[in-house]
Amino acid sequence: MGYPPALDAYRTRVEEALARVTSGCGGPAGLVAAMEWSLLAGGKRLRPVMLLATRDLFPPGGLDPMPAACALELIHTYSLIHDDLPALDNDDFRRGRPSCHKRFGEAAALLAGDALLTDAFRLVGDAWRGSDDPAGLAVVAEIAGAAGSAGMVGGQVLDTIGTGRALTADELHAVHRGKTGAMIRAAVRCGAILGHAQDDELAALTSAAERLGLAFQVVDDVLDVTASAGQLGKTPGKDREQGKTTFASLLGVDGAGRYARELSDGAIDDLRRFGPAADPLRDLADFFVTRNA
Amino acid sequence: MGYPPALDAYRTRVEEALARVTSGCGGPAGLVAAMEWSLLAGGKRLRPVMLLATRDLFPPGGLDPMPAACALELIHTYSLIHDDLPALDNDDFRRGRPSCHKRFGEAAALLAGDALLTDAFRLVGDAWRGSDDPAGLAVVAEIAGAAGSAGMVGGQVLDTIGTGRALTADELHAVHRGKTGAMIRAAVRCGAILGHAQDDELAALTSAAERLGLAFQVVDDVLDVTASAGQLGKTPGKDREQGKTTFASLLGVDGAGRYARELSDGAIDDLRRFGPAADPLRDLADFFVTRNA
Repeated sequence: MGYPPALDAYRTRVEEALARVTSGCGGPAGLVAAMEWSLLAGGKRLRPVMLLATRDLFPPGGLDPMPAACALELIHTYSLIHDDLPALDNDDFRRGRPSCHKRFGEAAALLAGDALLTDAFRLVGDAWRGSDDPAGLAVVAEIAGAAGSAGMVGGQVLDTIGTGRALTADELHAVHRGKTGAMIRAAVRCGAILGHAQDDELAALTSAAERLGLAFQVVDDVLDVTASAGQLGKTPGKDREQGKTTFASLLGVDGAGRYARELSDGAIDDLRRFGPAADPLRDLADFFVTRNA
Repeated sequence: MGYPPALDAYRTRVEEALARVTSGCGGPAGLVAAMEWSLLAGGKRLRPVMLLATRDLFPPGGLDPMPAACALELIHTYSLIHDDLPALDNDDFRRGRPSCHKRFGEAAALLAGDALLTDAFRLVGDAWRGSDDPAGLAVVAEIAGAAGSAGMVGGQVLDTIGTGRALTADELHAVHRGKTGAMIRAAVRCGAILGHAQDDELAALTSAAERLGLAFQVVDDVLDVTASAGQLGKTPGKDREQGKTTFASLLGVDGAGRYARELSDGAIDDLRRFGPAADPLRDLADFFVTRNA
């Protein structure tokens, strides 16, 4: 299944906003080039799209959600740049072309990642400066909490330490709750917070997001076994080569596929109370488990 | 001249707060150890102390400034960890002991830096969550703007590109406005913003901070020529070895010393309107140009 048409309009708006972010950042040309190489290389833009689609479950008004949506993509992009560095995964290709450090060198890639991460917070700070809507600081807390030591970076550390020996299912869940789950959870929660969701609405959406984040990673593990380099835009088979425990190695390819479907169905269940307004998120839940790249 | 006694109480409070930051961050033990190795290695804590001392020029009340003060030190520490990496300055020592990557390896150091940078924003977001004081988002914007592509990271890129050929005085100023100046400027501005300073007060303090930030760097360049490794806690003479343009190479050691004094006097002048309340900042301006490490 291809990218859900209901989400294409969101993705287009995100692409336009992202292109403005780096061209207006005020950094040196060499830095901006490295940032743009990775930020404007396409991609599914899942996190920003999820934030915007969740925001639209609630009445309009309040803070513009687009800066937060872009902030998520800047942070996702920085994490790919740093993960690809020789000190971590040492990946030469990303999204079908040379990774940032292969193209610009290690120093520039390291700094481009640092700049994207930092500029993510400048984006929301600048856009919302002067506002007294408490959602602003709550979103800063959500995004930074999801990306930092107890979230994405923490998951990356667990993953790095775990490489080379078998993980238990619990340990594997902990890795992915951090590495990919935290930012997908934050995307949905930020959309809800910006929409001034009630506590029970926020809880239902958080549950959906946690299931979707896990489903996404389970499918990633399956695709690392079944997909081609052309489909992925990166080198497949690296997990097995590195002796990594994955959902595919723990459950088998078929078992992992069933697990992903179960998680996605659970997420669709969580969305029931939101009626037809949540159709784009339901399409996304389908896409998460039927995608082939 | 040693550390100004009027600022010692601030530094003690900052140390106590920093120790709580990492112990409560919720990250994996291996990550926290690498973060603490660099964060809790002492140091002058200039940026947080400047923020707190500036905040105290204004009436009490409003948002707690300590999370912002700590955020500045987390960001300063991440920048040292990443700058020391082999891809950048390749420094084996920092604050008199092995640099983070020498102690924990490159992967852990890279991720510890990423976590410190991200957790800086979590710190202010979490502490101020729920508040409708617009100073909160303004501080997020100030800190991220100073640290990102148009600030500290941008200066680092200019510095990296500049290594190996002579820079003009203008280019050198641009490097340092980014590399060290931006965060010192942000420290003072955040203190003023949290104190709800008037526009003209903010302008005077910004001018003082810009002069102090430059004075600090000028003295750094002099110390790289005149100080010992024991004083610095890092390898001296690296600038000349790398053929870097510095204020010492441009103006000579004596000329650079005079320039630093002039900048510090100008900063003290900017502080005149604040009366005796600004004495700690005046002591700091003296310390900036009389320190020997």
